[in-house]
Amino acid sequence: MAFNHRDEHVDDHMLIVQANLDDMNPEWMSYLMDQLFDVGANDVYVVPIIMKRGRPGLMLNVLIDEELIAQVEEIIFRESTTLGIRYLHASCHRLAREFERVDTPWGLLTVKVGYHNGKLVQFAPEFKECEQVAKSHHIPLKMVYEEVRMRFNQQMQKNAQPE
Amino acid sequence: MAFNHRDEHVDDHMLIVQANLDDMNPEWMSYLMDQLFDVGANDVYVVPIIMKRGRPGLMLNVLIDEELIAQVEEIIFRESTTLGIRYLHASCHRLAREFERVDTPWGLLTVKVGYHNGKLVQFAPEFKECEQVAKSHHIPLKMVYEEVRMRFNQQMQKNAQPE
Amino acid sequence: MAFNHRDEHVDDHMLIVQANLDDMNPEWMSYLMDQLFDVGANDVYVVPIIMKRGRPGLMLNVLIDEELIAQVEEIIFRESTTLGIRYLHASCHRLAREFERVDTPWGLLTVKVGYHNGKLVQFAPEFKECEQVAKSHHIPLKMVYEEVRMRFNQQMQKNAQPE
Amino acid sequence: MAFNHRDEHVDDHMLIVQANLDDMNPEWMSYLMDQLFDVGANDVYVVPIIMKRGRPGLMLNVLIDEELIAQVEEIIFRESTTLGIRYLHASCHRLAREFERVDTPWGLLTVKVGYHNGKLVQFAPEFKECEQVAKSHHIPLKMVYEEVRMRFNQQMQKNAQPE
Amino acid sequence: MAFNHRDEHVDDHMLIVQANLDDMNPEWMSYLMDQLFDVGANDVYVVPIIMKRGRPGLMLNVLIDEELIAQVEEIIFRESTTLGIRYLHASCHRLAREFERVDTPWGLLTVKVGYHNGKLVQFAPEFKECEQVAKSHHIPLKMVYEEVRMRFNQQMQKNAQPE
Amino acid sequence: MAFNHRDEHVDDHMLIVQANLDDMNPEWMSYLMDQLFDVGANDVYVVPIIMKRGRPGLMLNVLIDEELIAQVEEIIFRESTTLGIRYLHASCHRLAREFERVDTPWGLLTVKVGYHNGKLVQFAPEFKECEQVAKSHHIPLKMVYEEVRMRFNQQMQKNAQPE
Repeated sequence: MAFNHRDEHVDDHMLIVQANLDDMNPEWMSYLMDQLFDVGANDVYVVPIIMKRGRPGLMLNVLIDEELIAQVEEIIFRESTTLGIRYLHASCHRLAREFERVDTPWGLLTVKVGYHNGKLVQFAPEFKECEQVAKSHHIPLKMVYEEVRMRFNQQMQKNAQPE
Repeated sequence: MAFNHRDEHVDDHMLIVQANLDDMNPEWMSYLMDQLFDVGANDVYVVPIIMKRGRPGLMLNVLIDEELIAQVEEIIFRESTTLGIRYLHASCHRLAREFERVDTPWGLLTVKVGYHNGKLVQFAPEFKECEQVAKSHHIPLKMVYEEVRMRFNQQMQKNAQPE
Repeated sequence: MAFNHRDEHVDDHMLIVQANLDDMNPEWMSYLMDQLFDVGANDVYVVPIIMKRGRPGLMLNVLIDEELIAQVEEIIFRESTTLGIRYLHASCHRLAREFERVDTPWGLLTVKVGYHNGKLVQFAPEFKECEQVAKSHHIPLKMVYEEVRMRFNQQMQKNAQPE
Repeated sequence: MAFNHRDEHVDDHMLIVQANLDDMNPEWMSYLMDQLFDVGANDVYVVPIIMKRGRPGLMLNVLIDEELIAQVEEIIFRESTTLGIRYLHASCHRLAREFERVDTPWGLLTVKVGYHNGKLVQFAPEFKECEQVAKSHHIPLKMVYEEVRMRFNQQMQKNAQPE
Repeated sequence: MAFNHRDEHVDDHMLIVQANLDDMNPEWMSYLMDQLFDVGANDVYVVPIIMKRGRPGLMLNVLIDEELIAQVEEIIFRESTTLGIRYLHASCHRLAREFERVDTPWGLLTVKVGYHNGKLVQFAPEFKECEQVAKSHHIPLKMVYEEVRMRFNQQMQKNAQPE
Repeated sequence: MAFNHRDEHVDDHMLIVQANLDDMNPEWMSYLMDQLFDVGANDVYVVPIIMKRGRPGLMLNVLIDEELIAQVEEIIFRESTTLGIRYLHASCHRLAREFERVDTPWGLLTVKVGYHNGKLVQFAPEFKECEQVAKSHHIPLKMVYEEVRMRFNQQMQKNAQPE
C-alpha cells in the first residue's frame, strides 16, 4: 500500500540560520517564509522576542542543509531588513516516513506515517486533503480527522491479524 | 513619614483602547507608548498575536480614563499604521498608595506602599532610584533591592511596637 | 449512562479580572492560580506582554461570576505584587455537558461531552484519567487518547442504530 | 481617482468573542479563522497564553457585529474543541477609507488610504498586489513597497499644488 | 550547616534537543515534560512560535547530557507527534550549589545558594517548602519568601562577623 | 559622503549565551541588558517561555565574541537569579555597513546602509535621530521616516546617473 519510503536517519550537516528583525513590516514575513521553503528549507519558524530598548521583535529561524547557506542568506538579506544573520550547526534525526492511503466515505485519503526503529510511532492525516473534504462536504474538519484516524487504526489492526 | 496619599477606590469610567498592528515598523512602538503615557494613559502594554494569514502582529493596549479617548485616538492614528481602533469599558480598583522613605547605606530611598482595606499588602522599592544606586555604587541591583526591602521591613516592625 | 447534566446557557453576569505584573517572581504564579481556582474562578490564564520601558510582563486573567469579585481581588492583592486590578463585563455561553463512561481495555474511562442546541459537538477524554492509565500501563498517552476516542465513537454509532 | 469611499464612524454594536483552546490540534486554526472571516468577522486573531496546570494554550479572538453572534458561535463550537465561549461589548472607531491607484513601473497599483477628521493619516500598498509584482518581476518585495510609497507621495504632493 | 555541595564547573557535553510541534494536543505537553525530567533532563522548556502557513506552534527544548540522547528521542517520538527532532551542542556553566537551613517562625526552611568563584551570588528559598508553609499557616506566599530571605541575610551577616 | 566603513565578513568565533529565568523580578531585565551591551555584547534579546511546572519564564540570549564569555557570565550571575548558563557556538555573517548623510527639511540625518556582495540591500534611518526630529518638530515619527527614505532614494538615483 505504501507508495513512498525514506529511511530513518540522522543528518549531521544541518544549520539553523537566525535573524532578529525589529524594524521590518511584519506583513512581509509570509512572503519571506515562502521564498525560503521554495529553495528547500526544511523548516522555517518565527519566535516573538523582546529586543534592545524593549522593542518587540521577531526572530526568524531557518533549518537547512549546510549547502543551502549562500542561497538562504541571499534571500534573507534581500527580503528582510536585517544587517546580519547568524547560524548554528545542528543534527537532525528524521523518522522513516511512508504515506498510506485510507479508504473513507469521501474517497481515498492520505495518512503520513512515521517509524522509529521500525516501529510505527506517528501517523497524521494530511491537512490539505482533509481541509478540502471538510469544505466540499460541509463537514467539521475535526470530524474528517476523527474518521480518517479511525479508519487508519482499523486498517492497521486488520493488517496485523494473522489470516 | 508619608508625603503622599491617595485613597483606595474603584473607577468605573475607564476604557481599554486596542489596535492590532501587522504592518508597522516595531521600532516605532516605544515612541508611540511614550506619547500615550505623556497624555495621561494609566497603562500601555503590547501583546504579541497571530493575525490574518498567520501574520505575526502586535496588539496595542491603552488603559485610560474615558475623557482621554479623543486624544488617545488621535495619537494612535497619527503614530501607528492602523485604520481602526476599538475600546471596551472597564473598572479599575486601585489600592491606596503611599511613598515611604527608607534609611539605607546609600541615603534615603523610596518605597511605594499599597493598602487594601487599610492593611499594607504591597511594597516595592522604586526602580529608578535603585538603578541609580546600583550604577553609582557598583553594587548588584538585586542587592540594592534586598537591602531596601530589609530596611523597610525593620522600619515597619519598629513602628508597630509599643513604646 | 450519563451521570451528570447541565443545560446549555448564557451567563451575562461574568467578569474578566486583569492585573499586569511586571515586578513579581514568576514562580509564585502557579500558587496564585491555584488559589483563584479554589474559590471558584471559571478560568485563569496568563498572557505574556511587553510593558512600560519594554519590560517583559505577565497579564493575569481571571474569569469569574460577578459575586466573586471581592474574594478574587483580595487574593490577587494578597498573593501578587500589583497595586491595581481592572475588570470588564462579559457573557459566557456554555454548552450542555455530560460525562459518558467508555469501556476500554483499562476499565471504564470518562469522556466529557458538549452539546450545542441538543447536538453533540465536542467530546474529550479526561486528561487525568488517561494520564493515570498511560503511567500505570506504560502506554503512550496519545495511544490512550486514540483508543478512548475510538471506543467512544463506536459506542455512539451503536446507540444511534435502531434495534 | 478614488473609486471607493466609506465615512469615518464609530460602531458601538461590536462584540469581541473569545475562546481559550488548550486541547485542539493547532493545525486546524487557519481553517477556523478562514471560516470566521467568510461569515463577515471584522478581525480574527490568536493570542498565545498559559492556562490551567501551566498548559500552553491559544486564545481565539473574533471581532464581530452583534448580529453575527449566533453564526460565529456555531462555527467556533463546530470547528474548535471548546466547551464555552465568552464575549465582551466593544466600540470600533474606523477611519474613512479610500483606495487610490498609483502609477508604477509595473502598472497601476492600489494604495489603501485612511482619513481621520478629513485628514490623510494612513496609507498602505495592498499586500497581495505587491506580492504578485515581486514574484512576477523578481524584485524584492520591500523594493516594490518602497517604490509604491514614493510614487504615492509624489502624486499627493502634485495634487496638493495649485495649478 | 551545609548538607550538600557541588563544585562550580563547565560541562561541555550537553545537547539542546528541539522539536517543533504544530499538530499536537497541547494538553499532553506537561506529561511529556514530566517524562523528560524523569529520565534526567537538566531542563525542559517550551517556546510559542509561528510555523509554516502561519500556524501557532510550540518548540520543545530539552537540555541534556549527550549520553541521554537515545532515551530522550525515544520519549519525544513516543509521546509527541513529531516526525523529526534536531539537536545542538552546548556547554553548561553551573555554579557551586549548597543548601542552607534557615531558622524561621515555621521551622527550619531550605535556601538554595549559588557560588561563583567562591563568592555567594545567588540564594533562593525553596518553592515547595514555602508553598507548604503558606498553605498550612494561611500566610501570603510572598511574605514567607520575604521572611526566609531576611532570616538568611541576618544569618549570613552573623556568620561573617569575627567572634 | 560615507564617514564610516566596515567590510562584509563572517565571524566564526561567536557564542550565544542563554539563561532561563523563572524566579527573577522582570523589572531588572532592562538593567541587565544594558550592562551586557555596555561590555560589548553584539545583541541581547529575551524570549518568553514556559518552564517546569508550567511556570512563565524568560530566556535571556546574549550574542558575543568568544573572548567576552567570562565577563558576560560574571554579569549574568551578578545581576540575574540564575544558577547556571549555557552557550552555543555560532557564526555571524555581517553586511558591510556605511552611514550616509541625507539632506532633509530638518537638517542632515543619518541612514545606515548595508551591502551584500557590494550591492546595497538595506538602508534604515537612524531611530534616535528621527525620534528627536519628530519630538522637536511635532511631526509624526512615521512621516519623518517616510521623508528620510524618499530623500535617500532620490539621492541614490541621482548618484547613479552619469553626468
